[in-house]
Amino acid sequence: MSITVAVDAMGGDHGPAVTVPASLQFLEATADTRVILVGRPDAIEVALRRAPSALRARIAVQPATEVVGMDEPPADALRRKKDSSMRVAVNLVKDGAAQACVSAGNTGALMAIAKFVLKTLPGIDRPAIASQLPARNGEVTVLDLGANVQVSPQQLVQFAAMGSALASAVDHIERPTIGLLNVGEEEIKGNDVVKEAAELLRRSGLNFHGNVEGDDIYKGTTDVVVCDGFTGNVMLKTSEGLAHLLYEVLKAEFTRNPLTRLAALVAYPVLAAFKRRIDPRRYNGATLLGLRGVVVKSHGGTDVLGFRHAIAKAHAEVAEGMLERIAQGIAAMPMLAAESVSAADA
Amino acid sequence: MSITVAVDAMGGDHGPAVTVPASLQFLEATADTRVILVGRPDAIEVALRRAPSALRARIAVQPATEVVGMDEPPADALRRKKDSSMRVAVNLVKDGAAQACVSAGNTGALMAIAKFVLKTLPGIDRPAIASQLPARNGEVTVLDLGANVQVSPQQLVQFAAMGSALASAVDHIERPTIGLLNVGEEEIKGNDVVKEAAELLRRSGLNFHGNVEGDDIYKGTTDVVVCDGFTGNVMLKTSEGLAHLLYEVLKAEFTRNPLTRLAALVAYPVLAAFKRRIDPRRYNGATLLGLRGVVVKSHGGTDVLGFRHAIAKAHAEVAEGMLERIAQGIAAMPMLAAESVSAADA
Repeated sequence: MSITVAVDAMGGDHGPAVTVPASLQFLEATADTRVILVGRPDAIEVALRRAPSALRARIAVQPATEVVGMDEPPADALRRKKDSSMRVAVNLVKDGAAQACVSAGNTGALMAIAKFVLKTLPGIDRPAIASQLPARNGEVTVLDLGANVQVSPQQLVQFAAMGSALASAVDHIERPTIGLLNVGEEEIKGNDVVKEAAELLRRSGLNFHGNVEGDDIYKGTTDVVVCDGFTGNVMLKTSEGLAHLLYEVLKAEFTRNPLTRLAALVAYPVLAAFKRRIDPRRYNGATLLGLRGVVVKSHGGTDVLGFRHAIAKAHAEVAEGMLERIAQGIAAMPMLAAESVSAADA
Repeated sequence: MSITVAVDAMGGDHGPAVTVPASLQFLEATADTRVILVGRPDAIEVALRRAPSALRARIAVQPATEVVGMDEPPADALRRKKDSSMRVAVNLVKDGAAQACVSAGNTGALMAIAKFVLKTLPGIDRPAIASQLPARNGEVTVLDLGANVQVSPQQLVQFAAMGSALASAVDHIERPTIGLLNVGEEEIKGNDVVKEAAELLRRSGLNFHGNVEGDDIYKGTTDVVVCDGFTGNVMLKTSEGLAHLLYEVLKAEFTRNPLTRLAALVAYPVLAAFKRRIDPRRYNGATLLGLRGVVVKSHGGTDVLGFRHAIAKAHAEVAEGMLERIAQGIAAMPMLAAESVSAADA
């Protein structure tokens, strides 16, 4: 089956200058796919000018007159901008014209619009933001990264079910191990929400490993780590800040004097390989999990390579049947399936 | 005035093999100081065997028959081990025989014992764990790093007052700027506790900068960052994990083949300088803030250099009058001073 991805061409710090070339690179690399570029046709067409006709044939342009600002309050974007490129891209998923959408725009607005237009999956109270991070022996899937600053124990179980489905779809892990982020490995530690969540996870049927601590994330102790969105967001942004600081210190040491600059020259291929391996663009693309549709949020400031990774991620989630896996996972968990029934009754 | 530091000689993964040489190095580097080594006299004397007599004269040995285990429940350590090296060291501060104590032992036990023996300062509900972390242009003081997994808005204000006093004492900053760790800079973001804390901080008289995000910590956007102990602990341990991962990837790239090994040889002095600058031992020593005494917790697995830094930190906090600064800071804040009066009445 050919997969179509709707791309919010106007989103992010660079708009079509990044989203359009990234879409072309994605199409070139991935057979049997199509992209719908959503936004101002004139701006998109300028960026498409030099596109090879074979790729151009796999692209449709869907006009949208408005753009959601990066700092616009999500409620305003939802209520007042019905013809924003972001909203129209999400609508395409709702209507079945596309199987996934990708946006580098305002995270809060994308979450609000996607939730309103697509609705959540049965058994899921609220969507979460998930992403893959590098770990010692591969990748680790972490959620929630900021959608829910306060969570219930039940929500943490939902995050675990969704994260498990995502890891099995994208990283091809049969029964991903789940870690519950806490301040100590002993069962007595942690706040009340985490303690109750651990109880629920133990009898959830998921492959629950138990509590993990902050340093377990990059160790890759478990395939999936679940936490509330406050902790997850701080964790992610702290990591970005630390990586940046370490990179700056390394650069400063290598440019200190002529001798260290010579060393940098000799070490350049190694440093480049190092930089490639930890390149955040390779991990670009956070999934808005729990919706009745695949929605991927790209970092706003990313470049063509990073945005291409986000499109490829959305594509992989569709190709690997992530939504079906989540639905199956939840159906197999009586504690969540029961809730979804009662929610439907209400 | 000569300052005396009580050292829990038995604490940590290595006990006297680390704590005693570190104490000797500290005494050598810091004139007009004394150390009381607390623990099993035989074990301590073995480690002191080759100590120069000039330094030996500035050391007292205080016997203690028990040792708190690294995984021992804090309540057990508090109730059952009245003659532990940790407890006796804290008692020395209470009795005035020492002005500060340092332990590399079990954090939870140290906190429980210190709170029970020393009590909290007026206006402080519960102590917090604070530490300095490297930032782009110096250091940033962060608290709470794990003592309080659930906090009230009032407690976050207390953390701010204490962190401000610590930063002004140790980093010699006149009016340290305070950041409230949150998931977004906009005032509408964050959970209820953080929102109310921001309101209180705004009229606290402290130099409140506003909300900061995870990446602001290592950027050094503010001199002090306050957060709940759950988030702080995850943040700190995630940082340790990420730094370790990046270091391992760098090492792997430099040892990949003969050519990269040659590059490593050339780059060695630069890499060594880099490692020195981000050496976690330089930041070893977390302060248990809010007690009626100076208590510093060293990392359990640290070496002589790291433990020496922890002792030096405790010494600096006494020498710079940290406790008095906290008391003054709280007295100057009507919202906390009032609470301390009502608490004293209760």
